[in-house]
Amino acid sequence: MAQTLTSSDVKGLFDKLSNWGRWGKDDQRGALNYITNQKRAAAARLVQTGESVSLALPLATIPAPDNPTPVTHLMVQAGADSREQPLPYSGDYFAIAPHGMANTHIDALCHVFWNNKMYNGFDASEVGSQGAKKCAIDVTRTGIVSRGVLLDIPRLKKVDWMEPGEKILPEDLDAAEKAQKVRVEEGDVLLVRTGRAAMRKQKGGWDPMRVGLPGLDAACLPWLHERRIAVLGCDAVSDVVPSGYDGVPLPVHVGTLVAMGIHLIDNADLDAVSAASQRLGRNEFMFSMAPLILERGTASPVNPLAIF
Amino acid sequence: MAQTLTSSDVKGLFDKLSNWGRWGKDDQRGALNYITNQKRAAAARLVQTGESVSLALPLATIPAPDNPTPVTHLMVQAGADSREQPLPYSGDYFAIAPHGMANTHIDALCHVFWNNKMYNGFDASEVGSQGAKKCAIDVTRTGIVSRGVLLDIPRLKKVDWMEPGEKILPEDLDAAEKAQKVRVEEGDVLLVRTGRAAMRKQKGGWDPMRVGLPGLDAACLPWLHERRIAVLGCDAVSDVVPSGYDGVPLPVHVGTLVAMGIHLIDNADLDAVSAASQRLGRNEFMFSMAPLILERGTASPVNPLAIF
Amino acid sequence: MAQTLTSSDVKGLFDKLSNWGRWGKDDQRGALNYITNQKRAAAARLVQTGESVSLALPLATIPAPDNPTPVTHLMVQAGADSREQPLPYSGDYFAIAPHGMANTHIDALCHVFWNNKMYNGFDASEVGSQGAKKCAIDVTRTGIVSRGVLLDIPRLKKVDWMEPGEKILPEDLDAAEKAQKVRVEEGDVLLVRTGRAAMRKQKGGWDPMRVGLPGLDAACLPWLHERRIAVLGCDAVSDVVPSGYDGVPLPVHVGTLVAMGIHLIDNADLDAVSAASQRLGRNEFMFSMAPLILERGTASPVNPLAIF
Amino acid sequence: MAQTLTSSDVKGLFDKLSNWGRWGKDDQRGALNYITNQKRAAAARLVQTGESVSLALPLATIPAPDNPTPVTHLMVQAGADSREQPLPYSGDYFAIAPHGMANTHIDALCHVFWNNKMYNGFDASEVGSQGAKKCAIDVTRTGIVSRGVLLDIPRLKKVDWMEPGEKILPEDLDAAEKAQKVRVEEGDVLLVRTGRAAMRKQKGGWDPMRVGLPGLDAACLPWLHERRIAVLGCDAVSDVVPSGYDGVPLPVHVGTLVAMGIHLIDNADLDAVSAASQRLGRNEFMFSMAPLILERGTASPVNPLAIF
Repeated sequence: MAQTLTSSDVKGLFDKLSNWGRWGKDDQRGALNYITNQKRAAAARLVQTGESVSLALPLATIPAPDNPTPVTHLMVQAGADSREQPLPYSGDYFAIAPHGMANTHIDALCHVFWNNKMYNGFDASEVGSQGAKKCAIDVTRTGIVSRGVLLDIPRLKKVDWMEPGEKILPEDLDAAEKAQKVRVEEGDVLLVRTGRAAMRKQKGGWDPMRVGLPGLDAACLPWLHERRIAVLGCDAVSDVVPSGYDGVPLPVHVGTLVAMGIHLIDNADLDAVSAASQRLGRNEFMFSMAPLILERGTASPVNPLAIF
Repeated sequence: MAQTLTSSDVKGLFDKLSNWGRWGKDDQRGALNYITNQKRAAAARLVQTGESVSLALPLATIPAPDNPTPVTHLMVQAGADSREQPLPYSGDYFAIAPHGMANTHIDALCHVFWNNKMYNGFDASEVGSQGAKKCAIDVTRTGIVSRGVLLDIPRLKKVDWMEPGEKILPEDLDAAEKAQKVRVEEGDVLLVRTGRAAMRKQKGGWDPMRVGLPGLDAACLPWLHERRIAVLGCDAVSDVVPSGYDGVPLPVHVGTLVAMGIHLIDNADLDAVSAASQRLGRNEFMFSMAPLILERGTASPVNPLAIF
Repeated sequence: MAQTLTSSDVKGLFDKLSNWGRWGKDDQRGALNYITNQKRAAAARLVQTGESVSLALPLATIPAPDNPTPVTHLMVQAGADSREQPLPYSGDYFAIAPHGMANTHIDALCHVFWNNKMYNGFDASEVGSQGAKKCAIDVTRTGIVSRGVLLDIPRLKKVDWMEPGEKILPEDLDAAEKAQKVRVEEGDVLLVRTGRAAMRKQKGGWDPMRVGLPGLDAACLPWLHERRIAVLGCDAVSDVVPSGYDGVPLPVHVGTLVAMGIHLIDNADLDAVSAASQRLGRNEFMFSMAPLILERGTASPVNPLAIF
Repeated sequence: MAQTLTSSDVKGLFDKLSNWGRWGKDDQRGALNYITNQKRAAAARLVQTGESVSLALPLATIPAPDNPTPVTHLMVQAGADSREQPLPYSGDYFAIAPHGMANTHIDALCHVFWNNKMYNGFDASEVGSQGAKKCAIDVTRTGIVSRGVLLDIPRLKKVDWMEPGEKILPEDLDAAEKAQKVRVEEGDVLLVRTGRAAMRKQKGGWDPMRVGLPGLDAACLPWLHERRIAVLGCDAVSDVVPSGYDGVPLPVHVGTLVAMGIHLIDNADLDAVSAASQRLGRNEFMFSMAPLILERGTASPVNPLAIF
């Protein structure tokens, strides 16, 4: 399974796979358009046992090599300090830069640029110091509810986890579908498990930019395009790091967010859903996630759910 | 429909309606225990058209009389400033004290105290300057998925909205059930619409503590207990403000969070779900909400979904 | 004392009074260059009694009409929560947008622009989402120590305070010098008292943009230029609000920061220094202020001192 | 120069050296009381050349082993984004937990506790989740202006810097006074240079709690007491780390802040003042520092000045 693409091929892919204009020149939702009412209704019909599983890490308040700017969590009022008040209460405060490498978040389509453009050709300058005027995260305000499909690569490869820098190729996706008896279809939320969360729980966090992360090779982009997925999620950042392509550090980010208009879920925790999938014998479920409505935001922390 | 309770009666209610110990002395989830796998599976079966509706306000970044400490939203990097970087991107940052009166949030059971105790008898001192050691918001980490029921009081009363300070009594809840052809059952997420969000959109925010809010009179507490709801949500703060009871500023908060262990959703926007309910002719739906996993947190901003 | 300038005159002043190039084309310190070692040594010789007076308001943590985004002050650890630790301690955290109207701060020369330029012709685009590459506040890292001079306009006019919107004209500055027996000289830090802090203490804060503030008319700009002051400070924002000139909302800001390279201290509290000046019979003193070294910052909260 | 104290001796010192009650039972300013008007006036008379030197590091916005929770610095508005506004401007925002190991800050007397007490016997519980009700940093609101004295230990020992964990003993202080021709007197701000800032500039930051810091051994406490200093500052944290005394991790913190009521300046940068002292041939100067007026605060970031 040798690498067969060049950097130039990868750059060419961004044009070939482009969904710009597919849903109109003003569209800011991209592949979310694949999720119809019918798709949501069908997703609900997948629910059998009613078991609900979180796909999120806890908000990462502890500094770590993959968390250099941790979530700030402080108290507005502690319990003991409110005794004299008419209604004693406690309250807190948190601050987050959601794109951190240790927080489960969804990337808005305005998060990365290629040749100064975001999805559908909007200019990078649309994201100024007051936030994003185009393709902000609030395009997901009615939530992302669809069929969720898990492709569990460590289970396929019979390992605890993939190693940092280890690539997933299209044939791995095909093999996982076959082995795990599921087929990715139009409008699905595709979740690719690398085992990174499991490795992190055991070994602690590492610096992803220096040490690497397992993930999809850019060669998977045509596969994702053909299957018409709505959203891609991963327990790493979808992209294998390093990418292996000169001048294209995160080609899956560019190919999905910019070219195809596919939102990404980064740094999910797919261990519990993997366990539930194995126990229940099925890799599909109802997926439900509702990003916070941060108008002009480039991301939201999220707690996605798989309902079996 | 005269007020028939005294302040002393209300305080007595907290004891009478207590669920402390009901799910064991260590329980921190309270009435969420009413939501079983079966309940979730049944909720999914309510989905017919697949329409998804948000019940949240956007994060409130603009100062207003009901938003004295607005959400801080700033950019880590704007689009134009990343051109020289290997992968141009934009990113942002936000800071929130989730209990604000203009943000849709869920209160953890540690949020308010009565006689220095929270739900199940845990002491207020369990919430220190490092957060809540008991009944924190992370007890909801696998999400809150259940049957959602809307009782739409302005629709019942044929008004655009209830006025600040206007009370909802148990007979209003009964009347709304009858008129709106729905019955609140065990494990439901009950959403009571007052029209406050609609009034706010038209008139701008006001200071709830000075001007008041429409909401439930403490006399509704036995009704809520009897129906065994799992969660209560409102477009105001569930409690009518002022409460009308001396020494008990927010009796519905105390009765639900402390006595019964019922989580509250404050400051929802129930206008869209009201419109959808009327159009589709049904006040029940699948409810899905996944608070952020903020360990030791007293609340989370949320974007709850109604799926019809 | 009628208004004698037109808006066009005011715009012309910015060119006439320009110090661009005066200290070299790369200069980022502007009129701070007037403060020499000799000037500082002379300032120290002004100290007689050794009395030290703060010219700052406390950091404004309470929302108010002139403080819509208050300073956030929260605890990292309270005293009671550290008892079990090897070294019990308390610690806190604060967040500030220093340009607020209720905080004593110094404006960096990059804070405002005229025709897209800041002081010395640097382009507005030098201030991006990662901060200011030119004229940031860290040019003051060795502090601002010089002769301080107070011109106390309410004392001159025998009023408790000037009213919002009330103008100070050059003849007022002349009259104050004469009455208060002091002459503003090269390299001085000039502090103009309007009584706004006194009025605010008595009446509470008001919205400066709606109600106005007392301050200098643009006609004072040539006077400031001729005297070669190094820094201008005020208990309001130096500019009278509204300015009275169409299309030039804050001409004193533009004339000082952009044209002359004079840093501004906004929202000082000059009541204590006024009282000390009267008691001690002199309106000059050693001035000492050390902005925080925030590289790329546009401002710093400050606590300036007058040492008599 | 062997260690001659036991842990028990050190604990005994806290009682022996106590200044509790010395300035009245309600006093919250401690050794700042040594700084009289006369002392300030005399300090001003030390100024000769008028040269001003900063003793502060820049605010530390970059994560590092000694800076796990860096200062957050973000823009409220960048220059390019304000072009359409009536008055184009830029503005920023920062958030800081001032006690960090890479920021120059002053510790309030409420910062550490011994047997649950702070200076003058106030209880640790006086510092709650709303901040410090006693001994907060705002006791320094009129600034700290006094004679500053530098004792430069690396210069004494003819090394570039002291190593992490290397101790300063009282005889070192005596020797430095003698060699550097200066005597520490009542009311002085004593600055002890270890060279840590110089080492950090060359080698990068390290984790002080794991690797250690140079600083004063607890045996110096009687010396500090006898000299009646007002404030102690250091380019490390005054305490040698590790302290070498079981159960007393930071005895100089306890002995100064709690017992003697001496405020501490941590993480100063004393390299420039060392160079100036050598060049000018004197280790005394006017010291001027004005902490921000953060009511209920436990610290303030500062930029202290030495004026020669």
